[in-house]
Amino acid sequence: MTIKAKTVIEQAKSAKQAASSLACAGTDAKNKALAEIAKALNAQRKDILNANALDLKEATESGMASAMQDRLILTDERIDSMIQGVKELIALDDPIGEFISMSTRPNGLQVGKKRVPLGVVAIIYESRPNVTVDSAALCLKAGNAVVLRGGKEAFNTNMALMSAMRSALEKTDISADVMHLVQDISRESVTTLMGLTGIIDVLIPRGGAGLIRSVVENAKVPVIETGTGVCHIYVDKAADLEMAAQIVENAKCSRPSVCNAAETLLVHQDVAKASLPLIKAQLDKHNTELRGDKQTQAILGDCVVAATNEDYGIEFLDYVLAIRVVADLDEALAHIRTHGSGHSECIVTEDYTSAQRFLNEVDAAAVYVNASTRFTDGGMFGLGAEIGISTQKMHARGPMGLRELTCTKFVIYGSGQIR
Amino acid sequence: MTIKAKTVIEQAKSAKQAASSLACAGTDAKNKALAEIAKALNAQRKDILNANALDLKEATESGMASAMQDRLILTDERIDSMIQGVKELIALDDPIGEFISMSTRPNGLQVGKKRVPLGVVAIIYESRPNVTVDSAALCLKAGNAVVLRGGKEAFNTNMALMSAMRSALEKTDISADVMHLVQDISRESVTTLMGLTGIIDVLIPRGGAGLIRSVVENAKVPVIETGTGVCHIYVDKAADLEMAAQIVENAKCSRPSVCNAAETLLVHQDVAKASLPLIKAQLDKHNTELRGDKQTQAILGDCVVAATNEDYGIEFLDYVLAIRVVADLDEALAHIRTHGSGHSECIVTEDYTSAQRFLNEVDAAAVYVNASTRFTDGGMFGLGAEIGISTQKMHARGPMGLRELTCTKFVIYGSGQIR
Repeated sequence: MTIKAKTVIEQAKSAKQAASSLACAGTDAKNKALAEIAKALNAQRKDILNANALDLKEATESGMASAMQDRLILTDERIDSMIQGVKELIALDDPIGEFISMSTRPNGLQVGKKRVPLGVVAIIYESRPNVTVDSAALCLKAGNAVVLRGGKEAFNTNMALMSAMRSALEKTDISADVMHLVQDISRESVTTLMGLTGIIDVLIPRGGAGLIRSVVENAKVPVIETGTGVCHIYVDKAADLEMAAQIVENAKCSRPSVCNAAETLLVHQDVAKASLPLIKAQLDKHNTELRGDKQTQAILGDCVVAATNEDYGIEFLDYVLAIRVVADLDEALAHIRTHGSGHSECIVTEDYTSAQRFLNEVDAAAVYVNASTRFTDGGMFGLGAEIGISTQKMHARGPMGLRELTCTKFVIYGSGQIR
Repeated sequence: MTIKAKTVIEQAKSAKQAASSLACAGTDAKNKALAEIAKALNAQRKDILNANALDLKEATESGMASAMQDRLILTDERIDSMIQGVKELIALDDPIGEFISMSTRPNGLQVGKKRVPLGVVAIIYESRPNVTVDSAALCLKAGNAVVLRGGKEAFNTNMALMSAMRSALEKTDISADVMHLVQDISRESVTTLMGLTGIIDVLIPRGGAGLIRSVVENAKVPVIETGTGVCHIYVDKAADLEMAAQIVENAKCSRPSVCNAAETLLVHQDVAKASLPLIKAQLDKHNTELRGDKQTQAILGDCVVAATNEDYGIEFLDYVLAIRVVADLDEALAHIRTHGSGHSECIVTEDYTSAQRFLNEVDAAAVYVNASTRFTDGGMFGLGAEIGISTQKMHARGPMGLRELTCTKFVIYGSGQIR
């Protein structure tokens, strides 16, 4: 165990050392490295698929649920999509080196604020092997070394992917040590990573609520919390009810397992009778279970399960929707304040003042008028690729792209000034 | 103890509740509140000085060192300076509500990124009572509620200051509950604060290295690390040696107790013989103790104490300077990489390429060419007031002003878009 823990530290130290030269690498060098990575993933496709088959065999033998196995499985198509992702990064603007500001102070000091890499980014994640490639490539483009701690169920796949990427870097001016996959998949390696202050600059957990909570509570290094989304759609008195039904269906059913899917519907009492049947008709197409308060049950009848208080404020991540009829906008705002997770919240309304109040008063990473919460995504917002969705307020909030993987430094040109 | 701990939680919850209305308060309302606070501090000056006298009496009785007592003491002049600080905040631009970007996506969604308050900021600090007023006022201007946990040695003073500020808010549209001083000054209240995830959005420790380390290691809420500054001056082969001597004197001796003071001098071997005596002449004016390597001793003689390895990389916070003669710029960069704390680093040189390499390759919050590290300060950099100097990379780096007390949210105007 001691030896294993040391290995994680060694990897992190190696990443830290490599990070300083990567920080000074130009955009051309980084883009060339990305192009080599894309090539290598294609060239080593067979090895990757074989490694994945090994993981899947173990998963089957250990009785892993098929939904979980689906997250783990790689196909030619999924590898193509990873490669495509890497190629698209080449086209994105390099955030590093941008001067956010530069001014001359009264004493003649020229003070600039320049965008630089974070340094070493660690990511702890589960199952999906695409995270290995996506994260490593994003961090590379933003000039960061990366230490990846994937789930043990995808270990062989992740090793094959990392091996392809590191072999690609061997052909470039960028050291292969800018990316590491933690080979110790014991729980101790997670604990060790979380404690590496002075080596790991930022730690991002990606995965289930349990993993994220554990990292947030136990890490000594700076953490960006991602993921949990208890998103609400509020159908206002002045809503276009047809539009509301479309938005609720899309937000709930287009992909229920993701964090920007809606979990709770709030409906203004004045339109509940007209709106709820329209919404139900859309949700019925997807066999969605409805859990409502008494007013909802009175309108929609026995098909609605009685909602408990616990049904408000949890992520079902499934075809289940909690519903509550509210007296007015204020009650909706109060409900969201109490039960929301600060991810994505939507009002459907044609009333100008209600729309503006909702946008101003709801405290969340993304607030919408008349659009599905499913748009909370780096690509959809125009950031290019995304490394996760931050639900904390420090450093980054909402979808995080390349720029959110950077920090700044003050650069001062003097001519002998003293204070 | 249980009752005391509950009190901290109650105060934090009260701050959280008050934060949502403060977040929507306009600039005029916040400026009016600041003006009232300035007035109240002046009006309640006697109570404040009396409370301070009580703290000083206890400090004397408990045998507090006079340097510490000096930090604690309030005078009319110091109160005037706090009031002036509050007044100056009124003139600063309000960062809240600024749209950093707003674009229309191909599907017609209008996606904006808007600057909003963090929510509830907690600050744990020691002795200096001006932090109570400075922090509360800065947080107010940036729309944040604040929970302050000051040192027990300044408790009466802090209570008097907080009482003045809260009474001022009673006369305005902003709730007095946007600011709280923790009344439980046991260690448990610190532990409780550090664990209030979901209530405290950001925690900033201000004080000695021990306090900061303890908060960084133990907090579950997001933390901004501040303070420790092991700053270097590197005198390059191509330095203007007169300028170097002036900069070293200023960086070391103008205020040795602060984090942007220099702790270590690195001198290129080719100019060590010419440069070190000039520097020593300046430092001798302040009776500065020199701790040098063998080469330094060979040049300056017996007055130089032999430096141990521990002398490199610590904050003396006193008239003590570690000195090392280095072979070249690369050795200086390596020394800083090993021993620096990422705060402020300076090269003195007339060589263009060395200057640019130093600025690019040194990984610190502020990197200087030909100017004293003492300029690392919100006021000096033109940010207006400052809440501390971040030495981490996440969220903010270097002096933190009003803007660093904010986060963003995505605001999306749709017209029925679904994904």
